[in-house]
Amino acid sequence: MKISKLQAFTPLFYLVWSDDLLTQKEFATLQEFIKSLNFLSGEEKEYLLSKVDISNPPSRNELAQWKVDIERSIQDKSSVKSIFDIAKALSESDVDLTPIESDFKKLENDLGILGEEALQNFKTKTGSFTADSQTDASFDIQNITQILDGNEAAIIKKVKSVISRPEFAYETSTDINVFRETVYKWCKILADENLGNMAYPKKYGGGENIADYFAIMETLSYHDLSLVIKFGVQFGLWGMSVQSLGTEKHYAKYLKDIGSLKLPGCFAMTETHHGSNVKGLETTATYNHNDQTFTIHTPNKNAQKEYIGNAAVHGQMATVFAKLIIDGHDYGVNAFVVPLRDPNGNVVNGVTIGDCGHKMGLNGVDNGTISFDNVIIPKENMLDRFASVNDKGEFESPIPSDNRRFFTMLGTLVGGRIGIPRSALAAAKSGLTIAIRYSDQRRQFGPEGGSEVPILNYRMHQRRLLPHLAKTYAVHFALQYLTKRFLNRTESEMQEIESLAAGMKSYSTWSTRDILQECREACGGKGYLSENRIDALKNDTEIYTTFEGDNTVLMQLVAKNRLAEFRKSFGEMGSLGIINYVYENAKTAFTEKNPIATRRTDEEHLLDNEFHLQAFVHREKTILASAARRIKKLVDGGLEAYDAFNVVQHQMIEVAEAYLERIVLEQFQVAIKEVEEQQSKAILTKLSQLYALSQIEKNKAWYLEDGYMEAVKTKAVRKIVNQLCWDIRPDAVALVNSFNIPESCLAAPIAAHL
Amino acid sequence: MKISKLQAFTPLFYLVWSDDLLTQKEFATLQEFIKSLNFLSGEEKEYLLSKVDISNPPSRNELAQWKVDIERSIQDKSSVKSIFDIAKALSESDVDLTPIESDFKKLENDLGILGEEALQNFKTKTGSFTADSQTDASFDIQNITQILDGNEAAIIKKVKSVISRPEFAYETSTDINVFRETVYKWCKILADENLGNMAYPKKYGGGENIADYFAIMETLSYHDLSLVIKFGVQFGLWGMSVQSLGTEKHYAKYLKDIGSLKLPGCFAMTETHHGSNVKGLETTATYNHNDQTFTIHTPNKNAQKEYIGNAAVHGQMATVFAKLIIDGHDYGVNAFVVPLRDPNGNVVNGVTIGDCGHKMGLNGVDNGTISFDNVIIPKENMLDRFASVNDKGEFESPIPSDNRRFFTMLGTLVGGRIGIPRSALAAAKSGLTIAIRYSDQRRQFGPEGGSEVPILNYRMHQRRLLPHLAKTYAVHFALQYLTKRFLNRTESEMQEIESLAAGMKSYSTWSTRDILQECREACGGKGYLSENRIDALKNDTEIYTTFEGDNTVLMQLVAKNRLAEFRKSFGEMGSLGIINYVYENAKTAFTEKNPIATRRTDEEHLLDNEFHLQAFVHREKTILASAARRIKKLVDGGLEAYDAFNVVQHQMIEVAEAYLERIVLEQFQVAIKEVEEQQSKAILTKLSQLYALSQIEKNKAWYLEDGYMEAVKTKAVRKIVNQLCWDIRPDAVALVNSFNIPESCLAAPIAAHL
Repeated sequence: MKISKLQAFTPLFYLVWSDDLLTQKEFATLQEFIKSLNFLSGEEKEYLLSKVDISNPPSRNELAQWKVDIERSIQDKSSVKSIFDIAKALSESDVDLTPIESDFKKLENDLGILGEEALQNFKTKTGSFTADSQTDASFDIQNITQILDGNEAAIIKKVKSVISRPEFAYETSTDINVFRETVYKWCKILADENLGNMAYPKKYGGGENIADYFAIMETLSYHDLSLVIKFGVQFGLWGMSVQSLGTEKHYAKYLKDIGSLKLPGCFAMTETHHGSNVKGLETTATYNHNDQTFTIHTPNKNAQKEYIGNAAVHGQMATVFAKLIIDGHDYGVNAFVVPLRDPNGNVVNGVTIGDCGHKMGLNGVDNGTISFDNVIIPKENMLDRFASVNDKGEFESPIPSDNRRFFTMLGTLVGGRIGIPRSALAAAKSGLTIAIRYSDQRRQFGPEGGSEVPILNYRMHQRRLLPHLAKTYAVHFALQYLTKRFLNRTESEMQEIESLAAGMKSYSTWSTRDILQECREACGGKGYLSENRIDALKNDTEIYTTFEGDNTVLMQLVAKNRLAEFRKSFGEMGSLGIINYVYENAKTAFTEKNPIATRRTDEEHLLDNEFHLQAFVHREKTILASAARRIKKLVDGGLEAYDAFNVVQHQMIEVAEAYLERIVLEQFQVAIKEVEEQQSKAILTKLSQLYALSQIEKNKAWYLEDGYMEAVKTKAVRKIVNQLCWDIRPDAVALVNSFNIPESCLAAPIAAHL
Repeated sequence: MKISKLQAFTPLFYLVWSDDLLTQKEFATLQEFIKSLNFLSGEEKEYLLSKVDISNPPSRNELAQWKVDIERSIQDKSSVKSIFDIAKALSESDVDLTPIESDFKKLENDLGILGEEALQNFKTKTGSFTADSQTDASFDIQNITQILDGNEAAIIKKVKSVISRPEFAYETSTDINVFRETVYKWCKILADENLGNMAYPKKYGGGENIADYFAIMETLSYHDLSLVIKFGVQFGLWGMSVQSLGTEKHYAKYLKDIGSLKLPGCFAMTETHHGSNVKGLETTATYNHNDQTFTIHTPNKNAQKEYIGNAAVHGQMATVFAKLIIDGHDYGVNAFVVPLRDPNGNVVNGVTIGDCGHKMGLNGVDNGTISFDNVIIPKENMLDRFASVNDKGEFESPIPSDNRRFFTMLGTLVGGRIGIPRSALAAAKSGLTIAIRYSDQRRQFGPEGGSEVPILNYRMHQRRLLPHLAKTYAVHFALQYLTKRFLNRTESEMQEIESLAAGMKSYSTWSTRDILQECREACGGKGYLSENRIDALKNDTEIYTTFEGDNTVLMQLVAKNRLAEFRKSFGEMGSLGIINYVYENAKTAFTEKNPIATRRTDEEHLLDNEFHLQAFVHREKTILASAARRIKKLVDGGLEAYDAFNVVQHQMIEVAEAYLERIVLEQFQVAIKEVEEQQSKAILTKLSQLYALSQIEKNKAWYLEDGYMEAVKTKAVRKIVNQLCWDIRPDAVALVNSFNIPESCLAAPIAAHL
């Protein structure tokens, strides 16, 4: 029995006994193989079969020896490419194995062993492609921070310094009463720093700086989100409702005390049965001409005000939305200032307050219910900018339609729909900073024999986090744009801006929801511990998709607005216009939808900003036109408009989404154009490419259905998204550090800056 | 001035002043229009212009009068189809408006008014298509419950009766110490009812019924999820590790006390630095032959055991996984029983316990860290079913490979990967029951003049919830199948079953994550209040995607297993087999991918079970073959296997997903085949169609890329998914009621059964 000959079988033995996946059947296959080899003697076969007897395994030491033998045999032999090559190397040159080469390879096949892969168990590793990737920033962090902060750098810095003070250490008590008081104290400090009244007129102690107010909201959101919501309820909703819906007499009476938090208050719009459909509010404000008062009343349990922030504990007054009734006539929903508590905190007669109790998040905010039992308030408490009752007791308003007046009133409150998405953006930045820093440090698995690898080096992990990082940068610039549009608004732009705000509110808050979910999972068990803060970030922002307007409902509104615009532009164009539109579309079809373009997969094209924007614009226009056609067809076919809109609700969401995605990409590209410093420009450009291409990938079914891209192109998009993630990975930590979130706010031990 | 002539303009006036969207520009358009009408006198024009003067709005009363006029004029005139028709009706027959008809229609266009839609503002509504849909079950709820419960009906009933007792009222304290004690007490009651030891041998007081044990886990999950996890840690992880990894002496010593909760214990595998990659655990168990003991030691901070359930407060012992060291040699990871506390709760010498503190959810479970400082345990404490130290102090094991031995040990613990997805399924059922019942009662918006409509009648709302409902039914049957496979397993099936369990664990827990997210949003603000329980359901199950194996890592394992199977089957087929495979694929291409099939959109085909399963199977096979080819190509191209697998990680997830989706659909269809009662069969069939088609819709980009479907077909799929949602809506409440969740467990006020 020639042992050197039989050594050829060692790699097979080793693989069979060490492999985690082989089963009894494979043992049988190997036994059959040995029996079939004619060049072996009976004795040799018996010896070999004894090594693959499932009831008689080798000892652990024998197995280890096999491995050593194999590794020694293939050292320095780079020509070794298969299990058969190892067999040859082991048997050295004294046996000719050539005759059994094909049998051997067939066996490898039958066992499901991929030679090249199995081989790697035996080769000493000197690092690997995957293991070698690491953090290595290509740009100066401070430059990016400067670009992000823009003109608001000074106020951002001030807010950060305030919330980094020791008294802003996070509240860890799970007792909501303790938490509520802490948040209230924080708000008081912010008021004392003149941050709360930043948007109010100087005449009433304010800063008259709305841009700064939004920057404050966003920066506060790096800290506890109960704080930002309580702050927003007091200074934004309560204070701004007085400022937007009231007149001089109300400003003089309330604004200063609201700004200093001497007069905590509420914004009481939502009722139990009317949240999205606020037009249907049932609370009444009945005018009594005799004594020049209004009686505020909750007609039934489901008309109670609900979820009202500041109501359960601190609020002393509220802007209450109620149907104005004069002489039995309903004049639609108007706003009234109604006292809730006296300065000592005692609830006033006729008012009943409930506590919404424990919530999924934001437990530092005292949400409550409010019912009114014929509460009488003086006539001057009507916030009378858009409607009033004159001296004769008659209703007066420059806006005759009740509906239109109400929506005009709501329109003045659109600021909330800018503050919330910006707060959501900040929460996403916090989550990504925690998850990306952790993923850069956390190691798990690695190449055979090498050390473990940072999990951010894994493609799936990059896929999970980096497109979100790109999207967060994109949304940042889009929200800057929205804010700028709002600050420079003219009357005629208001509808567009309201619609954009509603849309961006949905887009940003849904984005944050997805990002924080991914961050939680990407941090594994560590992400589940409250100390690492994803808990609070996630649960606090969970309601962002609902409050200030349910996202799904808002998206329907955005789509309806787009449809109206579309119809108008069609009208304005006239018949010649329509011909032009058709011609333009045909041109698109020619330049963008020709067989060369739909199949183009070269990198230059796929990374081209123009291609990205064209693809987004094409999608936006086509979906819009298609939705318009479909509704018209349904209505022409006899369906009520209400029913027709219900049938296309799903498509309406797409109309709005395509519009918002186009805006977000467009504004990202515009912002990058303004950057001069080359390294910053380069990394932002990469992020915009990743944003654009990952959205195209998300929407690829649409592009394929439309014929705008063919399969070869959408597959190339997937590949280049992977590549961009890989390329951005070394910059990922620097990109989250550029958000420049105070370490005391991040607080998560797993995000500790090493 | 002829007023009747001018009345023709009333509908325009009304629309301009009442519409929420018209802007200054549109006022100008209307003014131009009036000026351009030659058949009007100067005086008439002036009068009309006065009505569209933005600085001089009509009074609210005038506006109201216009509406009354218009409504009266079109009553009973079903021929009225446009604004122009109203104008004609208003001006009665004394003026011929025909000459301005085209101008009028152009104006409507320019204003962006869609005549048919605007018209509906004036028509009295007698209900609408959308409003008329309502709950109306087509089947007997008890029949479906019976099908779902199957053979486990008796134990399910028993568990439900126990958890409905008053002492199982939910704990509302946010103090985690209080909560932990409550959960412990609940576990004690369950142990006293002989529910904890259900899976143990009768010899040790158990029920020897693993099927019942899984049913208990699932049913308990209708109640607090901290309870089910604490229960699972004690009786599943701790008890089953003793049973699976130990031998008779351990059973005799521990099982009875574990089953009665006299001996609370832990399953201490995960370490701070090793969660997913448990092969890399660093805790050591060093054998001392002199005194026949092991020394258990934590070599560094990051090797401490972490997230260990039952550790922080109650655990008295733990199954500790540690590297066995004999004479300086490392024999791989093995399991040892190590004491943590004495019966009085005092931590033993050498053991240090930390508290994981507050978590996102499951705060009734006392997770902790454990460090060992040279803790000495007797030799008999090694759980020695798969490896032992013999009397000579030598290592012995029937499994020579350390790796393989460890994975064999893990394989015996696969039960946890059945319990968790079944628990997740129950949580999804609870969430859907709450959200669907609420959506059936909650009304918001409605047709003009009609009452508000249940939000479940809105297509988007149906889209958000009903495909999830279908998926929940599908997953139910797939988990029943997995359980059955596990209970009847043979040795040779173990790898397949382990892989299936790992996959279904991921599939079910991710599904639950998505479902509860959607339920929260679908319930709006109510969904955010803790009292409605989506909070707890969502936050408790959040970690399900991580523990018992991180889903993303598990999916990679499933995919690797599929690849190995694929290669083997290729091997077994031989070259003739490969020809057959190619031929089979060509046949698919011919029968399923011919132009007629890829474009077929008739309902009979789209609803056909065979079409669904074929589409799933085709996707599964094609993705698998493509991933195999791609890896081979990368490795052939010189990449290390480790790097190659990293490059295709994203595709690997798809491999696993396509496999799981096929299993889930297949098992749903198999289960339906066994149902005889016709109404049950019909509704389950509808659900399986909705599951299949909504998955196809989700994957439509793939089908388009592959050429299995053309755009016309994927668009038809979208339409039929919408239609199925609409058709299932009247049965939706009955379908969640069929889950038969105890009302005391649901507990959410918004889900109260009316």
